[in-house]
Amino acid sequence: MAACLLFESDFIMQKYNTADILAMEQRYRAAFINSLGGFKSGVLVGTADKNGNTNLAIFNSLFHLGANPALCGLIIRPDSVARHTYENILDTGSYTINHIHEGIYKQAHQTSARYDRDRSEFNETGLTEHYENGIVAPFVAESKVRFALEFAECHELKINGTILMIGKIIKVMLPDDCVLPDGFIDIERAGTITVSGLDSYHTTNRLSRLSYAKPDVALTEVS
Amino acid sequence: MAACLLFESDFIMQKYNTADILAMEQRYRAAFINSLGGFKSGVLVGTADKNGNTNLAIFNSLFHLGANPALCGLIIRPDSVARHTYENILDTGSYTINHIHEGIYKQAHQTSARYDRDRSEFNETGLTEHYENGIVAPFVAESKVRFALEFAECHELKINGTILMIGKIIKVMLPDDCVLPDGFIDIERAGTITVSGLDSYHTTNRLSRLSYAKPDVALTEVS
Repeated sequence: MAACLLFESDFIMQKYNTADILAMEQRYRAAFINSLGGFKSGVLVGTADKNGNTNLAIFNSLFHLGANPALCGLIIRPDSVARHTYENILDTGSYTINHIHEGIYKQAHQTSARYDRDRSEFNETGLTEHYENGIVAPFVAESKVRFALEFAECHELKINGTILMIGKIIKVMLPDDCVLPDGFIDIERAGTITVSGLDSYHTTNRLSRLSYAKPDVALTEVS
Repeated sequence: MAACLLFESDFIMQKYNTADILAMEQRYRAAFINSLGGFKSGVLVGTADKNGNTNLAIFNSLFHLGANPALCGLIIRPDSVARHTYENILDTGSYTINHIHEGIYKQAHQTSARYDRDRSEFNETGLTEHYENGIVAPFVAESKVRFALEFAECHELKINGTILMIGKIIKVMLPDDCVLPDGFIDIERAGTITVSGLDSYHTTNRLSRLSYAKPDVALTEVS
């Protein structure tokens, strides 16, 4: 399908243009395009409706939006398997983000199955609800790095009908030995995994932390 | 600062509420909150202005937005060091995304230094411009997975003045041995690294790919 040529360096580059992408079979294209953005944050989003019926769903579209105020963004397709999460956030304004480690990544992936509304993914996967005072949405007890969001702003992205949900971070829970003196959270030490594509899970190995970059100043490794 | 208690499992959880987060020193909070979202995609964004003056900047806010049409989102602070990227995208509509591997991650980090407009980060870091027919923005020749975006839609996020830039994927270049038969791109094989916080770079190790999840069906590992 795609043009192929020997590149100036030592690997053979395959090229795809718009027509090649459009010609891909639908599931093939979904796998291909989902891989392109690089490694992603895979997290469990916990919610409940007004009656306390809980929901848990894996997302790989969480991203940092700002530190002051402390904000995260999440992309949701309201017509997809994620619709219960979307409806619960609109219903209560409350959601939790729970990092995934090697011990729970299969259960986390299983939450992407299309369960009926009356079946909680907590029960179905054996993950445990944990509650904090004043926060409606359930945390995942097995998760080591978790935080609660309060819904703040949303945008409909007209180009494909997805919704950007923005939330304010109102509570954080994490292992006390993972916070370094400068505020950096060592999520690798906490066992947090990363995701690529739609279904690939990875642990990580730190290369290094690098110093704040300035013009004409050599970088150093932060110990 | 934060309350600390022994959790029901075997690790000690530290808790932070909104007041704790607000009380953090500014740089401490930036490091802390930037770590919370989990592992991120670290990529180099290549642009040029109408006169062909190039710019290269590292971003860790790229995310997948949809496969059909093939879209990516990028968060930009127009008043930050990223302002040249923002202005160039508005100027030409063209930008490239270039994955980072272990061989170039220090050069990639160095692009975050605040260079004057007339100094190209390509020259300053020794990375090489690569051009494709019909695409104004430069690619990074040393990058193994790269693609070009055509600016499509933007949203101002009122809550903190950041901009969500949405682009359509119009060209993809990658090593031919990294695309699996189902369309999944093995970015780990391509050496793509991941980022945590503001300054930490990591390689990855695949745990497994998991099958499409269905209710009441056991997951299997995809070989």
